[in-house]
Amino acid sequence: MEATGRALCEHGYADLTMQRIAEKSSMTTSAIHYHFDTKEELLNAFLDDLIERFEEQLACEASDPRKRLAAFLDAIFTPSEKGRDDFPVAFMELKAQAPYHPPFRERFLDLDDAMQSVVAETVQDGIDAGHFDEADPEAVGRLVTTIINGGHVRDVALGEDPADTREVVEEYLGMQLGWTPEVEA
Amino acid sequence: MEATGRALCEHGYADLTMQRIAEKSSMTTSAIHYHFDTKEELLNAFLDDLIERFEEQLACEASDPRKRLAAFLDAIFTPSEKGRDDFPVAFMELKAQAPYHPPFRERFLDLDDAMQSVVAETVQDGIDAGHFDEADPEAVGRLVTTIINGGHVRDVALGEDPADTREVVEEYLGMQLGWTPEVEA
Repeated sequence: MEATGRALCEHGYADLTMQRIAEKSSMTTSAIHYHFDTKEELLNAFLDDLIERFEEQLACEASDPRKRLAAFLDAIFTPSEKGRDDFPVAFMELKAQAPYHPPFRERFLDLDDAMQSVVAETVQDGIDAGHFDEADPEAVGRLVTTIINGGHVRDVALGEDPADTREVVEEYLGMQLGWTPEVEA
Repeated sequence: MEATGRALCEHGYADLTMQRIAEKSSMTTSAIHYHFDTKEELLNAFLDDLIERFEEQLACEASDPRKRLAAFLDAIFTPSEKGRDDFPVAFMELKAQAPYHPPFRERFLDLDDAMQSVVAETVQDGIDAGHFDEADPEAVGRLVTTIINGGHVRDVALGEDPADTREVVEEYLGMQLGWTPEVEA
């Protein structure tokens, strides 16, 4: 999976081959083919792995919803531990391929559901506990997720710093919920 | 330009060739090469044409800022007059290529500036005229543009209806400015 990520970042989707993935790993091309018939199958497994790790990052156990929302923002906006600056580029290429690959789309839909649910549940808990102003938790989840999607494409297409998007999200949450992560610091 | 758009939609960026563009037009491959040395140059011209037409659409002359903001949303969320459903997919592919093609990125930055300016200026005028609640016009322009970017990637990656994003933008504007387009109807 790591070799797939590195090969995708280096060569881009169009020029990604089993051979190039093998070159980044300790496996032969035929060993990879033994597990995955096609490039699409390998990339499905790559997305599954990525989403699983991302969902683990999102699974913050803090009982205080303010801490959980701050942890969500950290998980989204903290650069990958592997220091792969070109990871968002590779990930955007797979998003652009989703219309041609339904299994990619299914995975992006799962990821989107996971993000929206974390935000909506956390907002609901925060309202119930009196930490956040009254709001529609589903609408907040949808807006935050849309801003995060927008930040991803701005990072890739415009070269904009993801920290700028975090600022936009936090300004919005401040207005909508009367809460910003800084308040916790 | 139209042939370029159709070839890009049909074949995708990776498989786009001068030959395939020529097939969609009444020109020969060598006639296209006479004007454009490379695929990148041709796509630069394609983006210029697209952005110019988009900016014309944005140039709403209405003096009432509420009408101007509603016209902006119409320009963004009204499907292309050509009925090319796959246009957002082709456009997203070029965004995903921006890191490898600085001239693409320059054009996307210009387009982004144009969108942010229209929103910020219109919001400022609306506040001055007493139609909108007090707000930071630059921050509103940035957030609206980020939501629009997010809607584009959601359309492509998730197959989500752009009308859903319009609803998200309108909910936000309602909260931020105390104004929604419906109010005008």
